[in-house]
Order: sequence, then structure tokens, then C-alpha cells
Amino acid sequence: MEKNKKVVLAYSGGLDTSVILKWLVNKGFEVIAFVADIGQKENFEKVKEKAFEIGAKKVFVEDLKKEFVEEFIFESLKANAVYEGKYLLGTALARPLIAKKQVEIAVKEKTNVLAHGCTGKGNDQVRFELTWMKFLPEAEIISPWKEKDWLEQFKGRGDLINYAKKEGIPIDASLEKPFSMDENLMHLSFESGILENPLNKPKEEMFKLTKSPKNALEKETEICIEFEKGIPVKVINLNEKKEVKGSLELFKYLNKLGGENGIGRIDLVENRFIGIKSRGVYETPAGTILFNAHKDLESITLDKEVMHLKELFVPLIAKIIYNGFWFSPEMEFLMTAVNKSQKTVSGKVFLSLYKGNIIISGRESKNSLYNQKISSMEEEGNFNQEDAKGFIKITGLRFKLSSEKK
Amino acid sequence: MEKNKKVVLAYSGGLDTSVILKWLVNKGFEVIAFVADIGQKENFEKVKEKAFEIGAKKVFVEDLKKEFVEEFIFESLKANAVYEGKYLLGTALARPLIAKKQVEIAVKEKTNVLAHGCTGKGNDQVRFELTWMKFLPEAEIISPWKEKDWLEQFKGRGDLINYAKKEGIPIDASLEKPFSMDENLMHLSFESGILENPLNKPKEEMFKLTKSPKNALEKETEICIEFEKGIPVKVINLNEKKEVKGSLELFKYLNKLGGENGIGRIDLVENRFIGIKSRGVYETPAGTILFNAHKDLESITLDKEVMHLKELFVPLIAKIIYNGFWFSPEMEFLMTAVNKSQKTVSGKVFLSLYKGNIIISGRESKNSLYNQKISSMEEEGNFNQEDAKGFIKITGLRFKLSSEKK
Amino acid sequence: MEKNKKVVLAYSGGLDTSVILKWLVNKGFEVIAFVADIGQKENFEKVKEKAFEIGAKKVFVEDLKKEFVEEFIFESLKANAVYEGKYLLGTALARPLIAKKQVEIAVKEKTNVLAHGCTGKGNDQVRFELTWMKFLPEAEIISPWKEKDWLEQFKGRGDLINYAKKEGIPIDASLEKPFSMDENLMHLSFESGILENPLNKPKEEMFKLTKSPKNALEKETEICIEFEKGIPVKVINLNEKKEVKGSLELFKYLNKLGGENGIGRIDLVENRFIGIKSRGVYETPAGTILFNAHKDLESITLDKEVMHLKELFVPLIAKIIYNGFWFSPEMEFLMTAVNKSQKTVSGKVFLSLYKGNIIISGRESKNSLYNQKISSMEEEGNFNQEDAKGFIKITGLRFKLSSEKK
Amino acid sequence: MEKNKKVVLAYSGGLDTSVILKWLVNKGFEVIAFVADIGQKENFEKVKEKAFEIGAKKVFVEDLKKEFVEEFIFESLKANAVYEGKYLLGTALARPLIAKKQVEIAVKEKTNVLAHGCTGKGNDQVRFELTWMKFLPEAEIISPWKEKDWLEQFKGRGDLINYAKKEGIPIDASLEKPFSMDENLMHLSFESGILENPLNKPKEEMFKLTKSPKNALEKETEICIEFEKGIPVKVINLNEKKEVKGSLELFKYLNKLGGENGIGRIDLVENRFIGIKSRGVYETPAGTILFNAHKDLESITLDKEVMHLKELFVPLIAKIIYNGFWFSPEMEFLMTAVNKSQKTVSGKVFLSLYKGNIIISGRESKNSLYNQKISSMEEEGNFNQEDAKGFIKITGLRFKLSSEKK
Repeated sequence: MEKNKKVVLAYSGGLDTSVILKWLVNKGFEVIAFVADIGQKENFEKVKEKAFEIGAKKVFVEDLKKEFVEEFIFESLKANAVYEGKYLLGTALARPLIAKKQVEIAVKEKTNVLAHGCTGKGNDQVRFELTWMKFLPEAEIISPWKEKDWLEQFKGRGDLINYAKKEGIPIDASLEKPFSMDENLMHLSFESGILENPLNKPKEEMFKLTKSPKNALEKETEICIEFEKGIPVKVINLNEKKEVKGSLELFKYLNKLGGENGIGRIDLVENRFIGIKSRGVYETPAGTILFNAHKDLESITLDKEVMHLKELFVPLIAKIIYNGFWFSPEMEFLMTAVNKSQKTVSGKVFLSLYKGNIIISGRESKNSLYNQKISSMEEEGNFNQEDAKGFIKITGLRFKLSSEKK
Repeated sequence: MEKNKKVVLAYSGGLDTSVILKWLVNKGFEVIAFVADIGQKENFEKVKEKAFEIGAKKVFVEDLKKEFVEEFIFESLKANAVYEGKYLLGTALARPLIAKKQVEIAVKEKTNVLAHGCTGKGNDQVRFELTWMKFLPEAEIISPWKEKDWLEQFKGRGDLINYAKKEGIPIDASLEKPFSMDENLMHLSFESGILENPLNKPKEEMFKLTKSPKNALEKETEICIEFEKGIPVKVINLNEKKEVKGSLELFKYLNKLGGENGIGRIDLVENRFIGIKSRGVYETPAGTILFNAHKDLESITLDKEVMHLKELFVPLIAKIIYNGFWFSPEMEFLMTAVNKSQKTVSGKVFLSLYKGNIIISGRESKNSLYNQKISSMEEEGNFNQEDAKGFIKITGLRFKLSSEKK
Repeated sequence: MEKNKKVVLAYSGGLDTSVILKWLVNKGFEVIAFVADIGQKENFEKVKEKAFEIGAKKVFVEDLKKEFVEEFIFESLKANAVYEGKYLLGTALARPLIAKKQVEIAVKEKTNVLAHGCTGKGNDQVRFELTWMKFLPEAEIISPWKEKDWLEQFKGRGDLINYAKKEGIPIDASLEKPFSMDENLMHLSFESGILENPLNKPKEEMFKLTKSPKNALEKETEICIEFEKGIPVKVINLNEKKEVKGSLELFKYLNKLGGENGIGRIDLVENRFIGIKSRGVYETPAGTILFNAHKDLESITLDKEVMHLKELFVPLIAKIIYNGFWFSPEMEFLMTAVNKSQKTVSGKVFLSLYKGNIIISGRESKNSLYNQKISSMEEEGNFNQEDAKGFIKITGLRFKLSSEKK
Repeated sequence: MEKNKKVVLAYSGGLDTSVILKWLVNKGFEVIAFVADIGQKENFEKVKEKAFEIGAKKVFVEDLKKEFVEEFIFESLKANAVYEGKYLLGTALARPLIAKKQVEIAVKEKTNVLAHGCTGKGNDQVRFELTWMKFLPEAEIISPWKEKDWLEQFKGRGDLINYAKKEGIPIDASLEKPFSMDENLMHLSFESGILENPLNKPKEEMFKLTKSPKNALEKETEICIEFEKGIPVKVINLNEKKEVKGSLELFKYLNKLGGENGIGRIDLVENRFIGIKSRGVYETPAGTILFNAHKDLESITLDKEVMHLKELFVPLIAKIIYNGFWFSPEMEFLMTAVNKSQKTVSGKVFLSLYKGNIIISGRESKNSLYNQKISSMEEEGNFNQEDAKGFIKITGLRFKLSSEKK
């Protein structure tokens, strides 16, 4: 590596990226620290100061919360994207946004060198680097956890701490956490450490966004969520007659309500892109509520066959997002159809939140395809039951024919 | 129709099939009533008596519970079959079994005339008749709700009641139920009546198998479920150190535990096979617990790619079952692969049940593909992180190439 | 049926619809005959006269050729739609267009009664009626081949001929054809009669659009087809330096070239929507050429993953079209994505036609994603072969891990 | 690398692997050359001698032809596997077999070092190495084209030739071939060199297995192929009344017939696993004939829904094979279902081969689901056409309902 080259580092303020920052400075790089505010609980002013103290030439802190909610979380919810039937993709949704902004800074700062602190065993490295390759094909990528010299110097957490001490990098108390965490507006994730044994039960103390169902509110919270074209636009707390609008505001509000009511915790073993099975625990309060409400509204506003085709897309889209291909032709291809389908997904869903439960109890839409008259077992509606005879006879014709052959 | 012809009627003891029984007798049929015990709470002795009183020549009551659990419910769970992301197919699983037994009776009784009491708007008519066509291609089907003369005589519930009174058929109190129900071992379903408005919230009083999360046990019930080749073989109540084995026994036991803990209620609008949207409410305690536990065990015992392919099968298999094609070449085709995949799905899942929540907290298997060493972010395991560099570069190559074109 | 009601009949001029026309007139209907020109070789003036002679009140002959090519054939080709791997859907594409126009006439003529001459065993009845239900939900449908009184009167071809003779309907020589045919711009199809035995070889004399490979031109015809956004816009005959533009013109020209060169015959057994297996023989010269050329151009202009996803759509879209759901939400849903993918499918394909063969030999596009340098086994291009090491190690990681378990 | 270590090299006798052999010997390896006879036209005695001359310690020549046909080609044909709609996977099918045998030799020879001569840009490296990782997880892989020291020494073909000359390695005339070839029983493939420009037409002289349609036999060759459970068991030349049985014998015979009749050439741009688009030209005479005949027989012996599901598997299985995952859990998973489906695929297909055309004209099977009576448009068969009315009304119900909403 040439000396004095500029590098834009995705910087979180934590131990790893702080050590990386110093390590890069010590290697002669001019380091520009990029701190993305995607809703994690953080004192960004302090993170900024810390970066400068360690040796960053410039520090950019960018508030990406609104863009994160509108362009990533809500898009994913339109597709009902869920990985392996459980994971709502909180981290996978944030990475491409951060990575894209990082490229924008690099372009502004006239460099093509980009660095992240992700390990070589995880998914995030892929999500960062694919996005960089997409928007800056000539990117020169520094990923210390995959660099021989770094790996020789830093064998484990201990080496990082020693380096930090030696170099005067302030060390956080969170070091003692017996697992690692990743937080953003969508979720808080836990992995590693004591969670690595898939038999170990997560400790109650680790959760931050949600109360446990046991400690959740005693009274159920009744709400109504309003969607327009697949996107949540209003949340009404029916207990308190309170309305919340605005994408970011309502998402935060649902995080609060979900958290108080013990909603959105999951514990799973997932398949990482690189083929390793990994145990993760997640808290996703607002995401879980919206996922369920949106699917419910689709049940009355989507045509049956569209709904069934869209269901086939779910694992495909979830895999695309999980693996880091958010900005890809295949994502665009499938989302074009998904967006088309959402034109009619407007209306209200009524639900109550109670000790971990999302209890959906009603839904309505001006575009509803539900037809009470015809659905009724009491009334005929515009339906001749005799028609069903022919329907079944034809539907089962091949059974009859194949039986006759025997 | 010729006089004195024998017909085998699927008889429940309820108003509809009682009136149909009489109506058939009045038309000169020799009626054989077939009552299937698939786990509904019922006094079968009384049902038998009632059938004879109304005029049945013979009454067969068959206990199908064990076969229902082993050959239908557990098969469906192996496939993680769930219709439209929510419905665990309780009724759809029972119908083909009942219909097949009904054919067996017809064959024994040397007739080919079969009757059911399902309406022409629902799914069950299809499930019955397709199964009949499969196993008795020459079946002559009487489905009064699709027969002109019946429809002219019986316009609604009122006409049925009047006919019953006139003919001296004892009428059940359940007549006043403001909705209709279908019960078996797997679930209790509700539809029609006040539920026909998808905005109406289900009444708490209607639920029978489950307590509401609010009224559920205050203490969580910790259990361990053991699977062999995808099939649950043992449930251990860790609080009470109690073990339950045997397919039917453990399923009933999980129904009890689930019910006490408020587990397995859902409320949805579903797409019937015939293209009508229909609102349904279901209680499925044991099924919901097993569905979640089985999927969790698969997460450590199935190869990633097999798991992802199997996920694509879920909506396909669910649709096959829902639409009444349980006994079909396409079901056999897909289930052959599913069964192959289950060879390794043996092990234990630890979970607790609490006020509507199924909280999975640990899993283990002798076939586990989870590798703690390699998964660890702390240790290297048998893994060279530098390899990931090449992996990502190649994976993103097409982005780079397509960007270069521009 | 009320007397003097107006009905719009899809009229071809052939025996079946001529007898139906008369039968309707005799029943007291005011019959409006609708004749669609979708490229079949026909003397439309004569057909018109014949309709009037038989008793039609009005006769509409509409030239739908251009719309057929642009809005149906080319749309289907964009999706590479092919049913059961062989059938290019010639008839299935024409029916929804005819049926939609028929509704337009009905609306103009202020009636809701529509009639067709399709049998109750085929696919066309479905294609007609679904389109009518879509655009005229209140349609009253007369399909004589499914009406009891018609079926009692007309047991077979003989009864039709006798009726025609009795009623003075001129009878065509084609009556003696030992099979039935359906012709339009896209294809000529044959079924029934001697073809009903799937062992019987089609007779050479029956083919009209194509020469047999044996009798085809001795010299190969070299052409270039130019596409813009997935749509063919120009055909150049390289032998004759002749250019043909215009959707209809170039399609007809390719029919001519394909026909002379023995291209586009197939013989198959297909699964009809209603579950019957049916033997069909088709001649599809232009369609076959365009299908192959379009797919070839996609190979250099579509991203790999988009191409693979689009491949999954092929059987889905083909089934939608085949079954008569051209105008459906599910078709719109999938075609939205397909259309998105075609934005880059512009360029030229070079091919030669020779005795049944379409020999593709070259392709080029300004949007080509093909990169000669990187593809080269001789040059490095912008590619580090060492990267492939890591790629394969990671790709095969799960094999290694699972082997280690044993 | 340690000196004197044993390595098993996949050796072809060509320039690349000959230079690699020498290079390994010069590096101090004890080289065991493994030559797989998978049907390529080769003088294996000479190849063996050459390997010894260059310095191999041992040479194994193994005849894998029968295993190749039965365990790989016929398996793939059962699945109708075809990559990107065109490529019948000739090379992809051979690699896992060769690689597996190579592991067997390594195990016998008590080494874990394996080498191949594939480049880092192609698919074959992946197919070799994944198979090795599967069967010998502890394999140590030498792939010179991805090794830094090799790449520095050998920049291109010229360096190989110079090295060969210097080291006294006999050089083949084929060096001057302006493209590279890979031959086995299934096909002959061409890529690189002049073919790298996707606009360049393949030269007629390069083809070896097939005559061009122009130079093919003047008379058509009429044959019958008999299958049992999806596998071809007999070929009858109807012109010559000649029968050929035995998997290898009939496959070779079809190669001869196909070749004489100009069958099985394709020219395409395909997407390599690593994301590069690559132009390939293939000759696959027997494979193309069997692919078409097998699919045709399936049309009468497979249930409609099974056939449609199996069609969805085609691109999935083709991708698995193409990418080198022949020996994988996902392949086993899908093939279990495919094999199930083939139980009934027995019977005869009649076809004629003529100047590039495979003209299928008849098929028969004792398991045929084709029902001439019901299929007939003339006879009623066991079919009530009136039933179709109800079928269509129910099928189109959602259109009617959704129109009514507007």
C-alpha cells in the first residue's frame, strides 16, 4: 500500500473499528471516519470526538434514519421478506445503505479506498463489499480481518484490547459483554460468545429493545395501523386515542409499543451466505408488528393468484437481501412486480399487542376483494352452488382417468 | 335416482347431516351413516343412536385418531406445510382420511353411492369428492347443497330447523351459535355468522381449546420435544419431570399444554380453492407448537441448500393439501423428497410456553451440522478468513463487469 | 331464454359456427356475427355473405392482425413463454384478443349475451369465457356444446351436416379433413381425427404453412433479426440484402422464410387445462424463429441472475396463457417484471434457416454484458485467478463441515 | 510444499497437463497421473507412455464410460436437465465422475494431494474441487492456474510451449487449433480463441462428432427408442431392422446416427458459475436425441401436475449440475422426487432423424395416461361437457367478484 493514501472507514466507535482506525493511521493512511446513524442508541458527538482523538483526519456523521425506514425497511416489508421463515433482516437491510453512503463520501473525497471492520466469517463483509463493487467498481478494499498482516497481529479480542491500551484508545465497558450486538432502528441482534452454543438459553438481561413477555404491560395495547400502497402511514393507539404519522415517527412509536408489550424476540440458527450455520437472537419490535399487519392487509387486497405467486418470491427476495444483493438487477426485477402488487394494499388493520402476542382482529380496505355476500354460508350471493359440481368433476378428471387405466 | 339404493353418508350428528339423513331416507335410500372420530369432543354413542332414530340402516363409528395424527398431521408437519403463511390445515388434513374410510365402507357394503353435507361454496366438498374420485372412480356422488331439489327446499338454516321439527329430529342447542365450527384433534375452526364481517373481532367465549393469553397460566411451562426423522416421539415437561410418548398421547398432551398457555389462535382471511375469500379463526395448540419446534430442529439438521429448496415447496405442498389433493401424484412426488430430507431431523428442541408465546431457547442433535468452532467469531476454526476475499470478489464480479460497460 | 334477445357470436364461417348461427336464429335470437381476422387464410367477404345468408342481423369483420402481433405474440415472446417445453401458444394467444373484441361489440350493441362454438372438452371455451367474465361480469354465455338441448340434437359431425343440409347452409369441402385445424398469424394447429392416436404419424399433405425439411429450400437463408427492448423491429435477409420493418410485415416475412425452410413443426401430447391429455401438431414458422433469436439475444443482454429468475417464470407464464388467464392480475404481476428485464434486450442476432434448422451463429448488442477480455482463457482481463481459490473454498465449505461431522 | 509428496494429477495428455506434470516433478513431487477414459477419442496407450516419459511415477488409465453413461448421463436425462434452456451439460456431467475416481486413487495411494489443470476462470475447477472437498475433506489442492508462482511463470500459451520444448515434452499438432475443445461420450465442446467474439460464426471444419445438416445423410433415419423407468434400453433402426441394446452400446449408436444426420449442434453464450459470460459451441448427438425422446415419452406417462412440478425443477437441477454440485444433498433431495416420477416412464418413442431435425411422430406406453376416447372431440367418452360450465364459472369467479367491486 502506498503511504498517505486516503481511506474511508466505516466507523462505529467500538473497539474493533477504533483499533482499525489507529492501525490504518499507523500504516500511513489518511483516515476519514464515516459514522452512520441508522437508529442505534449512541452518543454520536462522543463517537466523533473519539475518532478525531484516535487520528481521523475527517469524521462524517450522517443521519440515515429516515432513508433507512423508507427506502429499505418499508421496501422489505412490502415483499414480506423473511429469511428462513424467521429473520426479518434488520442488519442485512442496513448494510447496503451504509455502504452506499460510504461510497458517496469516497467520491466526494476523491479516493477509492474503503475499509470496514467486519470479519471474514460473517455476512456483513459481503454486504459492504458487494455494494462497493456495484457503485465503485474500481474500489480498493481494506478488510483487516481478511488481511494476513492484521490476522498475524490480532489473534483475538485480547490482542485488540492490548493494542488499544498501548495506543491510548479509550475502551468501552461493553467489552465485557459475553456476546456481540448490532443495533439499528429495525432491530438489535446478538451473536457469538455464550450464544455460540445453540443449547444455551439467552440471558434475560441482554435484551434492550423489548421487555420479556413476563415483564410486559399487563394491559393490552389496542392499535390500528393504516397503510397506503403497502406502506404504513399512520398508527392509532386506540387506548389513548393517539395518532402517529410520518414514516420515522410511526416506526419509532411501534418500536416503543412493541417493546413494552414484549414483541419481536426470536432465537434461531441461520445459514450464513458463506455456508456456516450461526446462532442469532434478535429483537425486532416494530418490524414484527408491521410484518404481520401488512400480510394481513394483503389477505383482503391482493388477488389470490398474485398472492400465491408473491409467496413464492418471499424466500427468493429474502435470500437476495440476506446475501447482500440489495442493489442488484435481480432485486430490481422482483421488486418491480412486488411494487405493482402493492397498488391496492391500502387500508386499516386492527390489532392488539399483549405480552409477546400480536392479535389481529379486524381489517378493512376500500380495495377489499372480500365479498361478504358470496363468502357467506347462509346467503347464496351471486353464486350458483350447482356450478361447483362441474368444477369438482373436471378438477378430479385426471384421477378418474388414471384410475380407469389400472 | 333408483329407489332402495344404498348410500354411505358422512354423518356428524349435527343439524345438517341429520336433515340430510332423513331427506335421503325419505327419498327411499337405504342410508349407512359413517361417523369418523378424528378427535372432536363428541358423545359417539349418542350420535349413533340419533342416526338410528332418524332412520339409518347401519351406523359405523370409526376411531381414526391415531391414523389422523401419524399419517396426516405428522406428514404435513414434516413439510412445514402452512397455507398462505398462517393456516396449519387442520380441516384440510382430516377430510381425505374421512373420505377414504367412507369409500372403504362403501366397498364393503357393495355400493358406490356416497354423500356428504358440505356446501357448494366451501373447500370441504372438493376434499371429499376428489378423494372419492381417486379411490372409487365410479362413485355416484350426492351432495345435497349442490342439488337443485334440495336447494329449492332448503333456502337457509330456518328451513332445516323446520324440517327437523316436522320430522322429529332432535335439535341441538348449538344451533344458536352465531358461527359454524369444525373440530378435530388438530384444531377447532370458526367461520360464518358474525365472523363474516372481517372487521368483527372474535368473541372470547367462542374459544374452546385454548385460553386467551390473558387468562393463560401465570407460570411458563418449560418443555423439551424430541424428534426422530422429523417425527415427534417424546414430550418432556421440564417443570413436572413428566414424559409423554406415543404419537396420539403426546399430541393430546401438547394440545393440553398449548391450550393452558394460550397458544395457537389465529384470525385470517384466506383464499378458498374456488376463488372466494373467506374469514376464518382457528385454535391449533399442539400443531402450532410442533410446527415451530420442528422447523427449529431443521435449522441445525438440514443442509442449507436442502432447507432453501424445501422452503420453496412449502406453499406448493400447502396448496395441494388445502385444495384437497392429499391423495395425488403431485403430493407423492414432493413428499418423496421431503421424506428423504427428514432422515437426519432427529434431536431435541427446548422451549417454553407462556401466555401465547412459544419461546424456543435451545436445540441439539447428533446430526447437527452446526459447528461451534467455525461459527465462532473468536476462534479461527478450520477456516481461513482470507478465502472470503476471493469469494466476494468472484461473487460480485458481474457487478464490476456490468459497471465497466457503462 | 327470452325471444328476440341479441347475441354476439364468434363466427368463423365453418360448419360448427354456421350451424350454431342458424340454431340461434331458429331459437329466436337476433344474431350478430363477429368475425375476427387474426391472420387466417380466409375470404372474409365470403364469410360475411354466408353469415348474412344464414340469418345474421349484423356482421362485423375486424382486422386484429396488428394488435395480435404487437400486444399478444410479441408480449409472449418477451417472456419466452412455451407450454410444456414445446408449444408456443398460438391459439391461446389469439383467444383473449378475439374474446375482448367480442365484448366491445356486445357493449356497443347493448347486449350481454355472447356465444362461441368451442366444445366442452377443450381449452378455448375457457379462454373465451374467462375473458368475457373479466370484461363483462354480467355476461350471459351461450356455449351450445355444453347446452343439454344442443347436445341432444347434435351427437356428432353427421348431425351437423344433416342440419346444415336441411337448413340450406352451404357446406365446405374441408368437412372431409380427417382432423381439425385452427389457423392464425402465429400458427396452424391440427388435432382430432386420425391424430387422436398418438402413434399415428401426421400426414405430409396436411401441412400448409411450412414445407417439410425434405422439400425445403436447398440453400440456407441467412438473416439478421434486430430487437429493441425485447421486440423484433427489423429482419434483414442477408442473401438478398432485403430489409423488412414493421411488426406485422416482419412477422409475415418470417412466416414466409420459415415456411420455405421447413421451420416450426412440432408434434406433441399436451395436458389441457381441464386435465385431459391431447395430441396436437403445430406449424409455427415465425414464432419459432423469433423465440430462438430472442432467447439468444437475452444471453448477452440479461444479467445472469435475472435470466435465471426469468427462467423460473417461463412455465408459470406459459400456464397462465395456456389456461386462458391472459387478462389476469397474475399475468400483469409477472409481466411487470418481464417488461422491466427487457429494457436492455436490444441488438442483433445472426442466424441461418435451413431445412428445419435455425442455426444461430452470432449476436451483438450495445448493452452486451459479454466481456471478451475477461471471458478469454488466454488473457487475464481484469481478473485475478487466485480469487477463485477462496471462492471455491467458501462455496464448498458446507461439504467440508458436514464431512467432518461424520 | 514439502518435497517428495505424492500428488494425483488429472492428466489428459494435452499440453497443459503435460507441462503441469513436469512442473510438479520439478518441484519434487511424486506424480501419479490419472487418465480418465470417458469416451474421448484418444490413444490411451500413448497418453500413458507420455506421462511416464515426462516423469510420472505411476499412471492409472480408467475406463469410466459405462459408469458415465449410466450414473451420470442417464440420470441427468431423467431430470430433463438443460442449462439456460440449451446446454445439455456434457462437461459438467463428466467432471464429478473423474474427480471422484481421482479421490479413490489418492486414498489407495495414501495421499491427500490432488491436482488439476483447469483455469481459474472456468467452471471445471469448481466441479473438480467441490467433488474433492466432498469425498476428501482434508484434500490439499494444487491448481496451478491459481497459484502465484505458476502464473508468474506462465503468462500464456507461448510460455507453455517454450517450457515444453525446453523440457523435452512432445507437443501435439492440436496446439494450432484456434479454440479449445473438451470431448467425452456426451459431447464435444468448443470455446476460446476465435469463438471468443460472440459474433464470429463457428467454422465448419472444427466439428468432429456431427456432419453439418447440409452434408448429412440425404435419407431420413427412422428409429424407435424404448425406455424403461426413464432409461433408454433399446434403439431400433427401423430402416435397417437393427436393434441395439446395452446402455453404452446404444448411446454410442445414437451418437453415430445423430452425427450422420447432423443432429445436436448448438452455439450459445452461457453464464459461468463465477459470473462471467462465455461463448460455447457444442456437439451432442445422442444426448440431444435422448433428451427429446424422453421428454416426449413423459408427455403420455406423467401425470399433468407432476409434469408441471418437474418442469420447475429443470433449471434448479441444471444449475446444480452446471455449478459442480452433482454430489450434494440438494441434488439428492431433488433427484429422489425425479426418480419417483420415472417409475411409469416406460414405452416407445418413434422418431426420424434428418439433416439436423429430430422429428417425433409417435409414442406408446403401457402406462399411458392418454385416453383416446375422452380426448376425442367426436366422441363423448366418459365425460359430461355440461360439467365444464360449472368449472369455468368457478374458475373465473374471482374475476367476476373483483369486477363487481369497481
